[in-house]
Amino acid sequence: MQRIECGVLGATGMVGQHFIRFLENHPWFDLTWAGASDRSAGKKMQEATAWRLDGEMPERISRLRVEESKPGNAPKLVFSAMDASVATEIEQSFAKAGHIVVSNSKNHRMEPDVPLLVPEVNADHLGIAAKQRERRGWTGLIVTNPNCSTVALTLGLGPLKPFGITRVVATTMQAISGAGYPGVPSMDITANVIPFIAGEEEKMQQETQKILGELSYEGFAPLAARVSAHCNRVPVVDGHTVAISVELAAKPEQGAILDAFRNYKGALQQYQLPSAPARPVIYMDAPDRPQPRRDACRENGMVVFTGRLRPCPVLDWKFLALGHNTIRGAAGAAVLNAELMQAIGLLDS
Amino acid sequence: MQRIECGVLGATGMVGQHFIRFLENHPWFDLTWAGASDRSAGKKMQEATAWRLDGEMPERISRLRVEESKPGNAPKLVFSAMDASVATEIEQSFAKAGHIVVSNSKNHRMEPDVPLLVPEVNADHLGIAAKQRERRGWTGLIVTNPNCSTVALTLGLGPLKPFGITRVVATTMQAISGAGYPGVPSMDITANVIPFIAGEEEKMQQETQKILGELSYEGFAPLAARVSAHCNRVPVVDGHTVAISVELAAKPEQGAILDAFRNYKGALQQYQLPSAPARPVIYMDAPDRPQPRRDACRENGMVVFTGRLRPCPVLDWKFLALGHNTIRGAAGAAVLNAELMQAIGLLDS
Amino acid sequence: MQRIECGVLGATGMVGQHFIRFLENHPWFDLTWAGASDRSAGKKMQEATAWRLDGEMPERISRLRVEESKPGNAPKLVFSAMDASVATEIEQSFAKAGHIVVSNSKNHRMEPDVPLLVPEVNADHLGIAAKQRERRGWTGLIVTNPNCSTVALTLGLGPLKPFGITRVVATTMQAISGAGYPGVPSMDITANVIPFIAGEEEKMQQETQKILGELSYEGFAPLAARVSAHCNRVPVVDGHTVAISVELAAKPEQGAILDAFRNYKGALQQYQLPSAPARPVIYMDAPDRPQPRRDACRENGMVVFTGRLRPCPVLDWKFLALGHNTIRGAAGAAVLNAELMQAIGLLDS
Amino acid sequence: MQRIECGVLGATGMVGQHFIRFLENHPWFDLTWAGASDRSAGKKMQEATAWRLDGEMPERISRLRVEESKPGNAPKLVFSAMDASVATEIEQSFAKAGHIVVSNSKNHRMEPDVPLLVPEVNADHLGIAAKQRERRGWTGLIVTNPNCSTVALTLGLGPLKPFGITRVVATTMQAISGAGYPGVPSMDITANVIPFIAGEEEKMQQETQKILGELSYEGFAPLAARVSAHCNRVPVVDGHTVAISVELAAKPEQGAILDAFRNYKGALQQYQLPSAPARPVIYMDAPDRPQPRRDACRENGMVVFTGRLRPCPVLDWKFLALGHNTIRGAAGAAVLNAELMQAIGLLDS
Repeated sequence: MQRIECGVLGATGMVGQHFIRFLENHPWFDLTWAGASDRSAGKKMQEATAWRLDGEMPERISRLRVEESKPGNAPKLVFSAMDASVATEIEQSFAKAGHIVVSNSKNHRMEPDVPLLVPEVNADHLGIAAKQRERRGWTGLIVTNPNCSTVALTLGLGPLKPFGITRVVATTMQAISGAGYPGVPSMDITANVIPFIAGEEEKMQQETQKILGELSYEGFAPLAARVSAHCNRVPVVDGHTVAISVELAAKPEQGAILDAFRNYKGALQQYQLPSAPARPVIYMDAPDRPQPRRDACRENGMVVFTGRLRPCPVLDWKFLALGHNTIRGAAGAAVLNAELMQAIGLLDS
Repeated sequence: MQRIECGVLGATGMVGQHFIRFLENHPWFDLTWAGASDRSAGKKMQEATAWRLDGEMPERISRLRVEESKPGNAPKLVFSAMDASVATEIEQSFAKAGHIVVSNSKNHRMEPDVPLLVPEVNADHLGIAAKQRERRGWTGLIVTNPNCSTVALTLGLGPLKPFGITRVVATTMQAISGAGYPGVPSMDITANVIPFIAGEEEKMQQETQKILGELSYEGFAPLAARVSAHCNRVPVVDGHTVAISVELAAKPEQGAILDAFRNYKGALQQYQLPSAPARPVIYMDAPDRPQPRRDACRENGMVVFTGRLRPCPVLDWKFLALGHNTIRGAAGAAVLNAELMQAIGLLDS
Repeated sequence: MQRIECGVLGATGMVGQHFIRFLENHPWFDLTWAGASDRSAGKKMQEATAWRLDGEMPERISRLRVEESKPGNAPKLVFSAMDASVATEIEQSFAKAGHIVVSNSKNHRMEPDVPLLVPEVNADHLGIAAKQRERRGWTGLIVTNPNCSTVALTLGLGPLKPFGITRVVATTMQAISGAGYPGVPSMDITANVIPFIAGEEEKMQQETQKILGELSYEGFAPLAARVSAHCNRVPVVDGHTVAISVELAAKPEQGAILDAFRNYKGALQQYQLPSAPARPVIYMDAPDRPQPRRDACRENGMVVFTGRLRPCPVLDWKFLALGHNTIRGAAGAAVLNAELMQAIGLLDS
Repeated sequence: MQRIECGVLGATGMVGQHFIRFLENHPWFDLTWAGASDRSAGKKMQEATAWRLDGEMPERISRLRVEESKPGNAPKLVFSAMDASVATEIEQSFAKAGHIVVSNSKNHRMEPDVPLLVPEVNADHLGIAAKQRERRGWTGLIVTNPNCSTVALTLGLGPLKPFGITRVVATTMQAISGAGYPGVPSMDITANVIPFIAGEEEKMQQETQKILGELSYEGFAPLAARVSAHCNRVPVVDGHTVAISVELAAKPEQGAILDAFRNYKGALQQYQLPSAPARPVIYMDAPDRPQPRRDACRENGMVVFTGRLRPCPVLDWKFLALGHNTIRGAAGAAVLNAELMQAIGLLDS
């Protein structure tokens, strides 16, 4: 199969670098176009980028010429790693010009005609695509993935959806890589907890309802569950840990929930997507797992690990979920979305 | 005033060292007796102790002779810093022999005739003392303070008790000093979260109900609230942070709760106890406080700091509480209990 | 004694905040004037300052009005916490206008007519003052303290000066607080070492030679010793640790060096300065001390701790030195310099 | 090629686990035998081992039966991961019984008839094998690799050996994984430096002289260079960083040294060993590299990274070296030694 050309908007930033790394040896997508701010345009990626990830920028990418963030000569498929301050208009201009914009930015996530995907959980939400095009008069499309902490929560909750999720209290312990670079000052987080991340709790609460909700002819119906998030930053490099209490309408027994975690396949089984893990959720039996430093990077960082299922005296059950925030929670999530869109023909549409 | 002689059981261990440090310049109590295991008995404290706290062991204490952990020549007032594996029988033998045992150990906390004190919140629970003596035929007494994470939770909830606490979900991020020495291996906690502390969630749940409950003629009636704890270890040296969601029967408005936090005096105002802070709970207005490294040690480590009060979509309100685990959560808590007992005449009884 | 009014230039920055904290209850100096950039001038300190230290800004200081960084109405004694980018001209303008500028900035340290003081070691270097005034035509004066890592090295070497220091290899492990705020990104230093600090090695090498050198009628004669520094950042909050190999002309035995460490009094004994520790250097016998988290803050952060003296197969001896970088290495150092100047009458001159 | 069966002595411990992980997919060696203490013998590896590495123990190994640490049915090739307290006699008993013991333990490293290998640097030291057998009357052999910090130093110095190394001052910042499990208590190392590692400085100094020395008909002649080590533990998970000052007899210019680093191939080029990196030493040009968290794991952890070459005012040159302590400094080092022995026929002898 000939690989599909793709571009990255915001290629020189931290999220852009995660896209470069994740796409480095991708079997379907070939990164050939890098868009960034006017200030960087015209330079080689090597010069325009302060590479912050481990190791070095892939040789081939370092020689790419940075382009202005305008449609024009970009490939049809573009991943957006743009800062929220500029993403709204640029993403729209690409979609209007016929591009498929697979975005990690928060700007369009909560729009009523934009899919917010955790594809194992709500692949069917892509069904809104036709309505988006019709309503906006676009030939392109904008598709989004959630905030990094939302991914760990919603994929962790995915196996429990059939039991009827009615209430969720989720407390996060989030890694510093989630804040980008320079991000969190070391004077703030060394041997410390910062019990606040601006805007994060609101995002987790709203996005979770949309993702776990239903798409009907009328549009998205958010899950009627009440969701409460407490968001904290802890001195961890990669991996967001979430302590979850959940109320389930069906009042399942512990064994049924464990079975649900262990047998969960998600909605992608049929597609053989290169970035989809064999099992999107892995339940760990050890009493003190999952742990971010030991588990977040396993399985290419694309699995959400759960563990410690036990009764909750207030809601019904308590458990843990852990996801790699810059892979499963950002670049990997977007690429998986694009793979699904390719598999169902949406990239050609 | 002549200072009252006191002893420490388990003086050579980590908790014992915290007692030594906290009592170093105490205006009421004079540490003159150190009990430890038979292995240490007869040695000087200097030789028997691997001092792990900052700085050095106080000169005067270092010259004390370690005694066997038997009543006999110990002062009437003894603080117990003993390991749970031996505390039950030794503490009982001291109480039977007429000693006032002010214990930080978990062994007797949940006994129906033993006070479990956060004195600002439930000083009246000392009223069980007569029943304990009568029932056990002791001339002495055992009084306990709670687990370190329970203190931060219950003192943080103290100001809200008048509103009728009905449900609590509490997620902790606990410091490594809570595990003693050698305690948590650095390979486990460096840049990591350990989402499990053996027995901790059960202790927090039960102890909170007892502390916030009522003492009547019939004995203790635990608070009928449902309490759920998620306990986690994070790479912080001192200070347990707790993210709390709470349901309140009286459905107060935000302003009323803030007033409750800001005006809280607790039950010790009248006694002028040397270790009692002017305000046992301090509400911080900054959006990202309290933080363990920046706040836990303030006010001699005896205050619980709260902050970030905001509506909770699942229960009624969310907020943070932070307490110094080895001071307010251990040695300082026990000494404060003894001060209260002195103030009301229980040390002379 | 009536306290002497003083000001702080650069009062709103991190170093300025350390001055505010250190001067909070100073018996001799009364902080009444705060200078900062034009952008802050006219505001209350409370509004102009993002307070980053533990606890809160002292009440009285928070109400001070920020002044422009111009002589005029400033007190005669001003401490300079200014950024190197602006310190040269502003400090000179104050000295020209008759102010005593006691500076923590690097700008004037290596000038041939400016004292660079570690006063226990080279108090006599203040003798250059008359020459500075004469040469520059100033009625005021500029006096400086060294870079934070230089203080730990030179005070640690102070007791060995009588043996004739001829070669020094010093490798630092420096705390993050040395880089100010926001300073070192947590993504760079969490569970990592950054083996480079811009300009630091050059400063340590040159400043050490000047401090340990002699002042004669001709001016400063730097110590003829060769000094090599390796500077590294490590994940420590406060306290710079220095591993030192030293060659000594007199070839003393180990006992003589230990005696030198243990009996060292420095040049300030006679003055009873409020910030001068009883012993400026404390040698620790424990095989694994000093350690930054456990020792840097002891003795008000004004002592340099040494330890682990042992033979060096390449030079003569190896040992450790540790100093608190923001206290002994910055604000405390400058205040101590001012105290000495007051004691010898230089503040009145 | 049929894979060669091999065993691991001390298979259940931390170093043993590193051997298991490193050998997991080895093309030449097939781990079929696991020896441990009598207490574990007879159990399955799964039951006998508290797995501490990331992820899980390889399925196939988890089903191996643990054997007593006695020759008998072990394969000819055995890797020794044994604790120093028992390694001497057990390793000798295996060598006596005809086994090739490739040991990571310190016990035999400094014996005059035992090779201490960093094979890129001193592969020729295997020439002592015949003498060892003859002298001891063994049909087997003991071959050792150095202490983890010594590997980073000696491989970093390898390219400079032709210039005549005469003096070395090396200061380490060592990772916590070097101390095994439970190893360093988190209360000791969190936000701290421990400036002492028992026995480490002596090992680095002696081993470096042996490794960089010559083997002649008379036996080993250690390098006549003077070597001084300062060893420190820092809060880093993997990777020992070494700050090095070195004196070189040939007084090369900077360019010549850079060329030496960049062109260094070591002595293994000709053998195509599976664990030998294409370039055993990689010089990094960035001014602040190498860094342990960002670089130690690159190239399968088998490369020593150098950087920051600059003049040293005391000796001639200063630079950094970084090596992965549990891979290049332990399990990977031993396996590479065995690969070389296989390549030159020593495993069949």
